[in-house]
Amino acid sequence: MSETFVIAQGGGPTAVINQTVVGAVIELRKRYPGARVLGSRHGVRGIRDGDYVDLSDMHEEQLRLIGRTPGAALGSTRDKPDQAYCEAVLKGLHKAGADAFIYIGGNDTSGTQQILTDAAAGKIAFVHAPKTIDNDLVENDHTPGFISAAEFVASAFMSVDLDFRALPGIYVGIVMGRHAGFLTAAAAAWRKDEDNGPHLVYVPERAFSVERFIDDVKATLARHRRCVVAVSEGISTADGRSLVESVVAADKLERDAFGNVKLSGSDLTAALEQALAEGLPGKRARVDALGYMPRGFVGSINPVDSQEAFDAGVFAVTVASEGGGSVALQHENGKTMFRKVPLAAVAGKTRHMPDDFLQAGSNQLSEAATAYLKRLVPEKYEIGEPFV
Amino acid sequence: MSETFVIAQGGGPTAVINQTVVGAVIELRKRYPGARVLGSRHGVRGIRDGDYVDLSDMHEEQLRLIGRTPGAALGSTRDKPDQAYCEAVLKGLHKAGADAFIYIGGNDTSGTQQILTDAAAGKIAFVHAPKTIDNDLVENDHTPGFISAAEFVASAFMSVDLDFRALPGIYVGIVMGRHAGFLTAAAAAWRKDEDNGPHLVYVPERAFSVERFIDDVKATLARHRRCVVAVSEGISTADGRSLVESVVAADKLERDAFGNVKLSGSDLTAALEQALAEGLPGKRARVDALGYMPRGFVGSINPVDSQEAFDAGVFAVTVASEGGGSVALQHENGKTMFRKVPLAAVAGKTRHMPDDFLQAGSNQLSEAATAYLKRLVPEKYEIGEPFV
Repeated sequence: MSETFVIAQGGGPTAVINQTVVGAVIELRKRYPGARVLGSRHGVRGIRDGDYVDLSDMHEEQLRLIGRTPGAALGSTRDKPDQAYCEAVLKGLHKAGADAFIYIGGNDTSGTQQILTDAAAGKIAFVHAPKTIDNDLVENDHTPGFISAAEFVASAFMSVDLDFRALPGIYVGIVMGRHAGFLTAAAAAWRKDEDNGPHLVYVPERAFSVERFIDDVKATLARHRRCVVAVSEGISTADGRSLVESVVAADKLERDAFGNVKLSGSDLTAALEQALAEGLPGKRARVDALGYMPRGFVGSINPVDSQEAFDAGVFAVTVASEGGGSVALQHENGKTMFRKVPLAAVAGKTRHMPDDFLQAGSNQLSEAATAYLKRLVPEKYEIGEPFV
Repeated sequence: MSETFVIAQGGGPTAVINQTVVGAVIELRKRYPGARVLGSRHGVRGIRDGDYVDLSDMHEEQLRLIGRTPGAALGSTRDKPDQAYCEAVLKGLHKAGADAFIYIGGNDTSGTQQILTDAAAGKIAFVHAPKTIDNDLVENDHTPGFISAAEFVASAFMSVDLDFRALPGIYVGIVMGRHAGFLTAAAAAWRKDEDNGPHLVYVPERAFSVERFIDDVKATLARHRRCVVAVSEGISTADGRSLVESVVAADKLERDAFGNVKLSGSDLTAALEQALAEGLPGKRARVDALGYMPRGFVGSINPVDSQEAFDAGVFAVTVASEGGGSVALQHENGKTMFRKVPLAAVAGKTRHMPDDFLQAGSNQLSEAATAYLKRLVPEKYEIGEPFV
């Protein structure tokens, strides 16, 4: 009997996560002619419920088109399986006759694969293929999805800075990122000199103080007549609580299925608007949440990111053939190399921005951070110098 | 003595407003060799204050680069000149020895040119060149800046809809537009069938009711499992008050220099979040304001828009040579034609979406609207059909 492979997508969609599916499917069909390749709908939920799309014979042209499409074509899930759920998934995999299960996602996804590995006792190869715009997976130099999202963020802040040169004021853009500031830092990837915005960058890795924020903005306005600020939605005060928790009454806080405080509402926007209105009364100020746009914007799909996401899928097949593990993108000799690392090395861990990515005692990126960002997100647009 | 021309930019920057400056400057230098071409910084304020950048001899390469740059390179202003301000501007123009003044902006800008024409009594040619992402100038089929902004909005909603196919829920995107819904309608420009989002479009031209909104969202969820909504920031309830005014206490409303209620804060986001939390408790819902991104996003500069903005500047020089007026983009025989119309025909007037752009009694665009949008913003990306 021929082999059966199951593939699924978990967590937030990205601009290139479909490339990883397509890379894996094309490689599986090449290496294992006649194999069954099943796409599970909505992550592990589709395995539990027996809800698959058969990718075994799909035209390669159709697959390639899906690869170029943002979003998660198989559907995704935020389900975090408990013991019973994992057993149901394992049962589903056995029922499908799966030899391997490739699950594309972040560190939660890697965690699910670790649990399933332990429960399956060697009969199925469990592979985690990386994906996250947060860029927060340990063992990885960067993750598929990050570069495209970062390019969007860099483009957005370059554009808004030009807007605020014409009509000065304060702009605060809130960028996704609960624990890691990489994507927010990308706002500054294309700064040419210190007059270019964003002038200030606030990330979860450093404690946020409203007083300090207002002082920073005042100083920036005095120097540059405008102030463009990039803020991670996960910024926290020194007591370790997120800014949203610090300003919203406990009984009004919304939480998700994992008990995480919902950072995506208007609370943070309102809190920062209020801080600016009180600290700098009468100043033109605008606070926008970039929201979902960076993670799957069809106009900012970076070709390197796209290719790496595809290659991560291809390499996931090698990892499956070796019994399972996590695919990691590592930077060696100026190139991105794909390596197999243990699931446990990635599962449940969060990679933060290195300490030396921010200048000591300031909200400016260091040269190390800039060099890292410029390597991954090279400047894309030639821009003229305004006359004001 | 050779001629002197003054050029300035007013109102919100766009992705292509610099092309209009560059088109005018290059045409002026061609037609009037040796002429002085002065760019006034920050709109009429630079004329009042004698703050110019001399564009007479600037390298064409530098000008072309500025043309490709979003934002308003000369700086802009929200000043709405009163009688005394207008006299100061007129004095400034006389002092500069101006023969003509080309002012690029929306209907307020046209109004300023009308007042100055009346006050100058024929000695200076006043020209208004159109610019606005709102697309709300009468006499125009569409306005420079709109197409690029519309392309961003169409891209953003196509992308978010793919995101919400993977992880179903309710998404509301708030789009700039106080009185005219064109830009919000552009969210639906690339819908292929009724399953594609945005499923609902709310524009200022139709009264907004929270009850109706909740019913619409419920019906959409029942049909499509997700609901993607495009909302203009200027939506108003049946009593004529903006939704923000309807939900925010009068003493908390922020107003700009013109007495207009500030629509850009988190109030509208919060109001819609609250309406969804109450009307559809427990449903995953996200409300994002697209904010400033559509109007000058460096990654969505449409080449047709860019060329038309340049040509509008070129044509403004013809209008100047004929004594002044407003440049209008009209649609004739399948082409965009540049016409001179009286300043008074445009000044202070707002073009709304035609009544037949929305289906009767629904929040769906009509075929007329779709045809108009598809003509201006042709689909740019080939997208695969997800498996969910």
